[in-house]
Amino acid sequence: MMLVKTSIRGIITKTSVYFNTLKNIQSYSAVMSKFELPSRFKDNDKSVWVEYIQLALKYKPLNLGQGFPDFHAPESITKALAATANNENPLLQQYTRSFGHPRLVNAIAKLYSKLLKRNLDPNNEVIVTVGAYEALYIALQGHTSPGDEWIIIEPFYDCYVPIVRIVGGIPRFIPLKPKNTSGPLTSADWTFDKKELEELFNEKTKGIVINTPNNPIGKVYTLDELQFIADLAKKWNTLVISDEVYEWIIYESNQHIRIATLPDMFERTITIGSAGKSFSVTGWKIGWAYGPANLLYNLQVVHQNVVYTCSTPLQEAVALGFEEEMEKFDQPSCYFFSLPKELIPKRDYMAKFLREVGMSPIIPEGGYFMIADWTPLEKKTKLEEETDANKDYRFTKWMTKNVGVQGIPVSAFYSAEHKHLAENFVRYCFIKKDENLQNAAKILMKWKS
Amino acid sequence: MMLVKTSIRGIITKTSVYFNTLKNIQSYSAVMSKFELPSRFKDNDKSVWVEYIQLALKYKPLNLGQGFPDFHAPESITKALAATANNENPLLQQYTRSFGHPRLVNAIAKLYSKLLKRNLDPNNEVIVTVGAYEALYIALQGHTSPGDEWIIIEPFYDCYVPIVRIVGGIPRFIPLKPKNTSGPLTSADWTFDKKELEELFNEKTKGIVINTPNNPIGKVYTLDELQFIADLAKKWNTLVISDEVYEWIIYESNQHIRIATLPDMFERTITIGSAGKSFSVTGWKIGWAYGPANLLYNLQVVHQNVVYTCSTPLQEAVALGFEEEMEKFDQPSCYFFSLPKELIPKRDYMAKFLREVGMSPIIPEGGYFMIADWTPLEKKTKLEEETDANKDYRFTKWMTKNVGVQGIPVSAFYSAEHKHLAENFVRYCFIKKDENLQNAAKILMKWKS
Repeated sequence: MMLVKTSIRGIITKTSVYFNTLKNIQSYSAVMSKFELPSRFKDNDKSVWVEYIQLALKYKPLNLGQGFPDFHAPESITKALAATANNENPLLQQYTRSFGHPRLVNAIAKLYSKLLKRNLDPNNEVIVTVGAYEALYIALQGHTSPGDEWIIIEPFYDCYVPIVRIVGGIPRFIPLKPKNTSGPLTSADWTFDKKELEELFNEKTKGIVINTPNNPIGKVYTLDELQFIADLAKKWNTLVISDEVYEWIIYESNQHIRIATLPDMFERTITIGSAGKSFSVTGWKIGWAYGPANLLYNLQVVHQNVVYTCSTPLQEAVALGFEEEMEKFDQPSCYFFSLPKELIPKRDYMAKFLREVGMSPIIPEGGYFMIADWTPLEKKTKLEEETDANKDYRFTKWMTKNVGVQGIPVSAFYSAEHKHLAENFVRYCFIKKDENLQNAAKILMKWKS
Repeated sequence: MMLVKTSIRGIITKTSVYFNTLKNIQSYSAVMSKFELPSRFKDNDKSVWVEYIQLALKYKPLNLGQGFPDFHAPESITKALAATANNENPLLQQYTRSFGHPRLVNAIAKLYSKLLKRNLDPNNEVIVTVGAYEALYIALQGHTSPGDEWIIIEPFYDCYVPIVRIVGGIPRFIPLKPKNTSGPLTSADWTFDKKELEELFNEKTKGIVINTPNNPIGKVYTLDELQFIADLAKKWNTLVISDEVYEWIIYESNQHIRIATLPDMFERTITIGSAGKSFSVTGWKIGWAYGPANLLYNLQVVHQNVVYTCSTPLQEAVALGFEEEMEKFDQPSCYFFSLPKELIPKRDYMAKFLREVGMSPIIPEGGYFMIADWTPLEKKTKLEEETDANKDYRFTKWMTKNVGVQGIPVSAFYSAEHKHLAENFVRYCFIKKDENLQNAAKILMKWKS
């Protein structure tokens, strides 16, 4: 029993304590307390991904949880990686420039110079990172002093909040809420209250984090919404961190607007992108940030202390991929335009089978996730078999274990105070082989009947 | 002039200020001060690598500065990467497990279980990181509360100190000093004063960082030295972070001893390794840490917030590389044993030409760097043309610009208070093609004559 009492970190630690301290429980106990997690990490040690991937490894459900394609990445990029690995130049396997491989920062600067209609300096206005994830970390770590406030729109990509807290910042939340609650809904029905947002800004506000297209809802922010945010950022002299990793995954007539292109906004915006999402290679972990040199300088200082530099062969291959796509940029075969076209039938198929099974899906305007109200099915589950505080956690865990289809609880993307707004929803990912989507439909229909 | 006054960050910022604020200098000035580097990063924003790589890009010297091979990595690993990129399984391009790709943590656990003679749990006692660099960052970030002291032996790999400071720790320094100062010296002549080390430990000490084989000197710590450190760590209940990235690069009869194998030391040791150094692919940025689960837990929490996970194809390829080398582990063809054999003639050739040119090299017992006393050549240089405070910086910069051979100033690996101990030395890297070492010799001999 003492073992359990001295341990505060659950199974892993208990096991370790058990095996290592039979000899000398007291001394180990002293070691333990000295080496506990520093207080800035307390309550920031949970990750929905770590938990749900563990669950997937154990129960082997049809996995519609994590956001990655289960089909082939474009050959332009996988062949480029193979060629780089086999390249005669041995330096392609060695350290490259800390803030980005020259060939890649040049490609990124060229692409976004065109999209932003301004000349980006590849060496000082672009930085390559270990996925968009590291870009978020170094942007927040490099621009937060203790007590700085960051405004975060809910639902948010779940890492924003622990990062803000770890680096000494204070997250302030504003939820997107559905304007309508009945009839066929789309992500455009989810909006923020302008007055509520206005009231969050104050002299402690360091910045606001936005995510368009939004994960998990799929909302593509409108010009009106972005201009409203931009005007507040200028009024209060704050930063904007714009997470645009799904920038190419836009459906129908929706348009992705980069907030950095609005008047006088480049100067205060750090925009984050992802090769993993742009080229369907989430496992490559190559991302970037661009923005004015003075703001990126802070990211450089953190980056050079955290990882120093990113993988050379992956950066070379992503650069080759960009070069190839940019050559056919105006053609339908360009991957950035062909991928969303490929995804529309998958999105629509998922919406159809979720409706048939009794859920109410929200049709996304962008991204490759769909949230759906699962509560009409509550009576078919035994949520009391699960112990989580939030019922969407109970639903998704019960479904993983008993039905064999895994989704992600949407309250994971909300602050504690607002989780109740999202408990009726589950997030599914539809960038999956047709065969797997059909299997998901079959499993759910069979369960329902 | 006002532009210069408002800028505190040198050229980059000045340029940015200049271009962005002609319209409105006052408001930009306000933006600037709000977005300066948070105070914890002040004076931690320099990196000798960023500075010297910039210099190398500009002057294109024969580069004996940065530590990477300029010849081919072993085919076992480059072919493995090409095969992974072309693999039929699309999931090899997608996210893998946060704390390490299953195939790689299994390979690492298998190798070190054999070397440590204890059973390592691949899932809880190993974590894969973005190079050894990220492993150092998450170990220090995950185990430092404000005011914690870390003992650092000089010369140290230069990132240890800014990382300790950024995370709120206090570095305490103890220099290695040469026992002898004349005659042919080796890295074994450089030792720490035991009494001095003993006096640094106190109740605020969180741990000590050691690096064996040491970069830049090449010292391979002896059992006696490691046992002395281990006894102090146990007496004061502190951690040991053991940076062993050059663990396979050991010459002659020297033996690499892992401090985690000393009695009762596994429990308090985090050991760091590197695929970049083990397989001569520094550009892959795959490293790892191993240690007891309760200590690694803190690293996991930081890792999942900083990068979340590492590249899947690179991890798969490193796993394949390990599997292949482990099959021939007892044969001379195993890369871990063939590489140091290949390096001995390079080391000896470098020592010979440095002596011929008039320097006094310290022969390393491990690693692929050699430091050398350059001061006998001082009269042939014009150090007054350079402005750095430390004369080894002036020497290496002057040599890069005027002679065309680049080395790294050894005082970069010392604290401010002890830089004077190292100013007579330059560090050269000898894991280079014979042709390039011969060119370096030729350039230096020509300059001398």
